[in-house]
Amino acid sequence: MGDSVYTSYPPQLNPAQRDFLVKTIKDWATQNGLVVRPSPMFIQKESDPNGALATNAPVTLFPSPFPKACFEEAEALQTVYNKLYAAITCNEEWLGKIMEDLIDVDDFISRLWKVHLSVQKEGYAQTLSLGLYRSDYMPHSPANATSPSLKQVEFNTISSSFGGLSSLVRKLHSELLTSPPGHPISYPPHPLFQSNIPPENTAVETLSAGLAAAHTAYGPSKSSPALPTCILFVVQDNERNIFDQLALSKQLSTVHKIPVFRLLSTEVLDHTSIPTSDSSRPLIYRPPHSPDTPFEVTTVYLRCFYAPTDYTSERDWEARTQLERSAAIKCPTVLNQLAGCKIVQQVLAETTGPDHLANFLADTDPATVARLRDTFAPQYDLSSSGRGRELALNPETASNHVLKPQREGGGNNVYKTAIPEFLRSIPEDEWKRWILMELIAPPAEAKNVALRSDGEVLSGNVIGELGIYGTILWDQANGKILQNEQGGWLMRTKAKDVNEGGVATGFSSLDSILLF
Amino acid sequence: MGDSVYTSYPPQLNPAQRDFLVKTIKDWATQNGLVVRPSPMFIQKESDPNGALATNAPVTLFPSPFPKACFEEAEALQTVYNKLYAAITCNEEWLGKIMEDLIDVDDFISRLWKVHLSVQKEGYAQTLSLGLYRSDYMPHSPANATSPSLKQVEFNTISSSFGGLSSLVRKLHSELLTSPPGHPISYPPHPLFQSNIPPENTAVETLSAGLAAAHTAYGPSKSSPALPTCILFVVQDNERNIFDQLALSKQLSTVHKIPVFRLLSTEVLDHTSIPTSDSSRPLIYRPPHSPDTPFEVTTVYLRCFYAPTDYTSERDWEARTQLERSAAIKCPTVLNQLAGCKIVQQVLAETTGPDHLANFLADTDPATVARLRDTFAPQYDLSSSGRGRELALNPETASNHVLKPQREGGGNNVYKTAIPEFLRSIPEDEWKRWILMELIAPPAEAKNVALRSDGEVLSGNVIGELGIYGTILWDQANGKILQNEQGGWLMRTKAKDVNEGGVATGFSSLDSILLF
Repeated sequence: MGDSVYTSYPPQLNPAQRDFLVKTIKDWATQNGLVVRPSPMFIQKESDPNGALATNAPVTLFPSPFPKACFEEAEALQTVYNKLYAAITCNEEWLGKIMEDLIDVDDFISRLWKVHLSVQKEGYAQTLSLGLYRSDYMPHSPANATSPSLKQVEFNTISSSFGGLSSLVRKLHSELLTSPPGHPISYPPHPLFQSNIPPENTAVETLSAGLAAAHTAYGPSKSSPALPTCILFVVQDNERNIFDQLALSKQLSTVHKIPVFRLLSTEVLDHTSIPTSDSSRPLIYRPPHSPDTPFEVTTVYLRCFYAPTDYTSERDWEARTQLERSAAIKCPTVLNQLAGCKIVQQVLAETTGPDHLANFLADTDPATVARLRDTFAPQYDLSSSGRGRELALNPETASNHVLKPQREGGGNNVYKTAIPEFLRSIPEDEWKRWILMELIAPPAEAKNVALRSDGEVLSGNVIGELGIYGTILWDQANGKILQNEQGGWLMRTKAKDVNEGGVATGFSSLDSILLF
Repeated sequence: MGDSVYTSYPPQLNPAQRDFLVKTIKDWATQNGLVVRPSPMFIQKESDPNGALATNAPVTLFPSPFPKACFEEAEALQTVYNKLYAAITCNEEWLGKIMEDLIDVDDFISRLWKVHLSVQKEGYAQTLSLGLYRSDYMPHSPANATSPSLKQVEFNTISSSFGGLSSLVRKLHSELLTSPPGHPISYPPHPLFQSNIPPENTAVETLSAGLAAAHTAYGPSKSSPALPTCILFVVQDNERNIFDQLALSKQLSTVHKIPVFRLLSTEVLDHTSIPTSDSSRPLIYRPPHSPDTPFEVTTVYLRCFYAPTDYTSERDWEARTQLERSAAIKCPTVLNQLAGCKIVQQVLAETTGPDHLANFLADTDPATVARLRDTFAPQYDLSSSGRGRELALNPETASNHVLKPQREGGGNNVYKTAIPEFLRSIPEDEWKRWILMELIAPPAEAKNVALRSDGEVLSGNVIGELGIYGTILWDQANGKILQNEQGGWLMRTKAKDVNEGGVATGFSSLDSILLF
């Protein structure tokens, strides 16, 4: 099978070749906005008190091979996935039932659910809902398979990131593959480079068009007198990945001609308000640098509020509630955020009981539903009655699994034989916070070289995850879909040891793909 | 007169307005490549051993007002200036006579001249010569004048910089003036902002087109078998202003589809060669990362070798000589570099003796020559017979003058009443290394606010210098001009104390202009 592609890839670099690539990539990244603010581990706050510095985003020196069939399948399924998660979000009863169990053990889920309930009680002022999604996959390539199959790692319904930078990595690798013009010698020769460049990446265009569609669908100002309208990016303080977000706001203001403002999540209550006199509840934003020219917010784009750490006080929950009860279209709503919990993925993947997937996609042809179902890796809850508990506690079967928190977000996974021991170390009533997922077997021989943000170069065996971006705008009141698009992708490549728990010498880099 | 424009400019900023502008500009600059590598005074080498960091270029928060008539005059004269400096460069005898005096006292000029002589002896292998020029001006606005007049500060014939970044500053200020779309509130309101944005800035297009024209004029490879051709940027090590240069190479490779390589001046002899067997003397470049695919260099673009500090050993002079004697078109040749010495400017400005200017521009209509002559500030040599000596030694008259080294480059000027004392502190036979120039009186009330590269914000009275870019390609053998273009500009704004010798709290920033 295709695994042989990986054994001879990437081409070896001698020191001069490596120096050239590293220097070229470092300069290109900085020239073209493929950058991040440096981490405090690299540059301490005291060295740069005004936060003026930037550095290249972590990127691979080479694009990674990716099976063409898997890429095309992921693209083909994205609008179906969009529809699925819109349908789940519309079914508040179904979602509520799933959340029920978690509310007892997970304070974060519980608080989110309460925000939803309180706004529901008052009545939602806005029924339109916007999703900017990213579905993440690996090509499942177990030793005995004849060809890799596409398996979903997770589905992101809030703050799906890296669309802005990912398009730039594609451009970087494409330019390296074809430069200098007419006589490409930036890379050493390799069969995979023959007339091959990474596929187009329209992530910036797609995600921005989704936001612009919501802005337009919102319609004219609901205030009287009418106010100018805008999109509001609500963001974290000290965001290192700001340039990823700015790629979208640049597109919105220069191409779509829509005013965009950035507002720290901690300042939502300082600069936004909902006039008590106006039952349509428009969200008014007063720019601190020009408070006398208020704007009405059509669309709230959250690049924050996705993790418990984003809520440091009651004030943050108040802020989230203010946004939720306003007439602005939320990207996403609380319900849509909750639909992205791992537990939803797990319930959809259950092979016993009701066929939720088929129910949610009742108007989709069964063959397509089956293809989508094929992207699910086997996954289980840890209820006392279920198979998951058995697989997790047996070291032999555990070794083929990963334990993930049921919330979206990641970063706290427990791998393989560490699972039984971990479960026994926590109270059994907390087990329901975890999902057991069969490990996806990515191409074992995959290798790459990465340039970290501090300029260090590391190489070795890697695991790559492909994300596909999609946007959907629907009416939560009747399930009607106003726009459903797919476009753009992200390749993220990690040193293998990172995924196994190690971090010290590892890397996690933005990457692009060469189809084979 | 127009000085009143300056008294109420720029608009006052309250803290929120200032914070917004500073943050927006800092982020915009980094996202769009308006960046530099940080200085060692800001970030020490140990903190960033791999040189991964970048920071915003120093920029003003506001565009600076500039008299429209002066701007248009500067643009109108640029192709005449191009022609003038090409003509001077073609008149080796005239230039040699001027250099004669300096050769005794200035080792650098002397060495450059020797390079020319040695290549001349062998015979130049290339008669085409390329100039990428920048003519720098101030609007001369003495208290008693009714309207400002355009006065030239200097004319740069080598490594004319900032074309790449200057176009970006124009874009930055234009976006701030018009954002958010439809409701511009990024700046506080000001009458000068009414339907006014900085004029187009085509510096990148113009300078790149000049290099591309030379590349094309070089014709096919002179090697047998024929080699692919390229343009070579010869650059300094640890260049902080690299992104200014990369803006040009990006344009050349993506728009003109011409291969461009960068080569350190210290590595010219390692990676370039002239085959002894080939009397046409093609310059062969072997990229260190792909030495088996040699390129023939059509055009050598020097962003180094302009100052004595660029020559640290005999090897550097050998390198310069190798480039000079090759068949590559030089931008610039040694002769063209020498034509940019301040002393040439001074000789042209002499009001007694032969009318050199009219002679060099014999085919230009006299009215245009007169307009060009009007841009000269009175300037003098310090010969014992001349008026300069008298003006320089008298503290009263000295106070209206500046003393400049006759070499291009700047940075070592002596101002006003410091002049007599300075001259008496050096041997009299070194006086001929200096030119006395009447001070240009820039608008006295000009103010601006600058964001430094370390993120500090400073404001105060400023002096702005406008540079106009021009390119010319000519045949040194017969004076025939193949291309002569003008396009793009640079506004550089300095805190007033910098020009008076102080530096500690000062700034020197890239700026743009609003015409009035």
